[in-house]
Amino acid sequence: MTTIGFVGLGAMGLPMARNLVAGGMSVRGYDRRPEAGAALQEAGGTAAGSAAEAARDAAMLFLMVVNAAQAEQVLFGDGVLDALAPNAIVVLMATCPPSAAEALAERVLQTQRRFLDAPVSGGVAGATKGGLTIMAAGPDATLAAAKPALDLLGDKLFHVGQRPGQGAVVKTVNQLLAGVHIAVAAEAFALAAKVGVSLDVILEIMGGSAASSWMLRDRGPRMLEQDPAVASAVDIFVKDLGIVLDAGRSAKAALPLAAVAHQMFLAASGRGEGGADDSQVIRSYHALNGTLNGTPKE
Amino acid sequence: MTTIGFVGLGAMGLPMARNLVAGGMSVRGYDRRPEAGAALQEAGGTAAGSAAEAARDAAMLFLMVVNAAQAEQVLFGDGVLDALAPNAIVVLMATCPPSAAEALAERVLQTQRRFLDAPVSGGVAGATKGGLTIMAAGPDATLAAAKPALDLLGDKLFHVGQRPGQGAVVKTVNQLLAGVHIAVAAEAFALAAKVGVSLDVILEIMGGSAASSWMLRDRGPRMLEQDPAVASAVDIFVKDLGIVLDAGRSAKAALPLAAVAHQMFLAASGRGEGGADDSQVIRSYHALNGTLNGTPKE
Repeated sequence: MTTIGFVGLGAMGLPMARNLVAGGMSVRGYDRRPEAGAALQEAGGTAAGSAAEAARDAAMLFLMVVNAAQAEQVLFGDGVLDALAPNAIVVLMATCPPSAAEALAERVLQTQRRFLDAPVSGGVAGATKGGLTIMAAGPDATLAAAKPALDLLGDKLFHVGQRPGQGAVVKTVNQLLAGVHIAVAAEAFALAAKVGVSLDVILEIMGGSAASSWMLRDRGPRMLEQDPAVASAVDIFVKDLGIVLDAGRSAKAALPLAAVAHQMFLAASGRGEGGADDSQVIRSYHALNGTLNGTPKE
Repeated sequence: MTTIGFVGLGAMGLPMARNLVAGGMSVRGYDRRPEAGAALQEAGGTAAGSAAEAARDAAMLFLMVVNAAQAEQVLFGDGVLDALAPNAIVVLMATCPPSAAEALAERVLQTQRRFLDAPVSGGVAGATKGGLTIMAAGPDATLAAAKPALDLLGDKLFHVGQRPGQGAVVKTVNQLLAGVHIAVAAEAFALAAKVGVSLDVILEIMGGSAASSWMLRDRGPRMLEQDPAVASAVDIFVKDLGIVLDAGRSAKAALPLAAVAHQMFLAASGRGEGGADDSQVIRSYHALNGTLNGTPKE
């Protein structure tokens, strides 16, 4: 029976760890919140008292923490890495900048452990039903060794490259498209507002045309509201498009559209609206164009 | 029986004129190509020997010509306008810049005729089955007078504003989104290429995620080809994003994403690739980034 350490039993991590247990793995999980460990124990896993205890002699260590800084803290600050079995595999599933994933991998490899950069998409629903999309990067042999466990977590496993960091790149590309699609929907709506064309009509026509995007249909209606409920905040894309631009800078690749989109989210955050729904990036356009609440000021 | 003049019996115009005939209108059509007039005659319409003859004493004049310059030439160069019945309605259905539609309207209104700015989408398929989307701008009374005819052409009639030019704005907004969506797909793919991630995998993952757009799914596969068949050329978006930016300039509205996207199409055209499929705007990114055929040069 493969022993797996699992650190980060949050909204995503807990159902993922449960799926490993259900698949016959011996899972020792750790989370700062003791109730998360208790929930895993209830599902047939083991609650560890520390990250190092979760990792002790484990063949694999899954990290489903919030960001790269937490992953670094777990691996190197808490002595977790040293506790792992020789040749164990660290599987980083948290969303991190490609360079951070790469740097973490390098330090892990120096200790004779292996590393898989494997961010996911599919949200809590995907995590719960073992239906995540996994974008895994690492050597063939490492992926092959981790595959039985990964197959319990996701139903779409993509081997996106041999080098750690490439999984994070795929997630980054996803966020590049998503962020620019939100900003350009705002740009289009703001032009229509400036010339006095009904935004409801624009949304109705564009949502069903070749001009459509997933984000236009999802965020578009909220762009027409003055103060919509927050589904995802402006500051998330300040951060995520920041990761996108950092990735471009590391690779020395020009990302002119992402750079412009980032400015619009950044300006919104700078006006104190970083906590608003990300559809409200449209306010940056209204501010620029002298339109107010979607209609010309004069 | 309402007499309608119809100028421009091309791939779109001929089936549109036929639908007016089928709906009980008396249609006199004109096209530079005599065979187009003959085809209309076969369908029960009348082939006119000139645009002015098509317009004589007509209550409405539909223009389905190639661009604003042709519309201007027909209306003012050929004496067509003078031939129309007093209070007749000129219905401009060709895709034109908003300012051009506005200027044409102004000159038409000075002759005591009425004007409707009514561009369409839906292509030849929509034109043939009377299923076009019509984005009409003009006074309520003018739209009401034209509605029986418009209802024979399209199944989605949107009254997008009272002022001619606003219909063209809606088409412009459509092209803004479409053009930026193509360019950002190229930007995302080019980043992936630069870091050596498989574009097939990116396309497979992104096509089904929140990062998806109609254009990503349509143009994406052709971005992975070296020299795809031309579905729509780079130069079309050099022109259309040019119209978008002209519209922003007229309205004094900032369009930073459209401006950047235009540069990428423009550069492709400047390298002599204006006739290539518009998916090949990705070559502008490869040129910038030093990637060749989608993979790093080194």
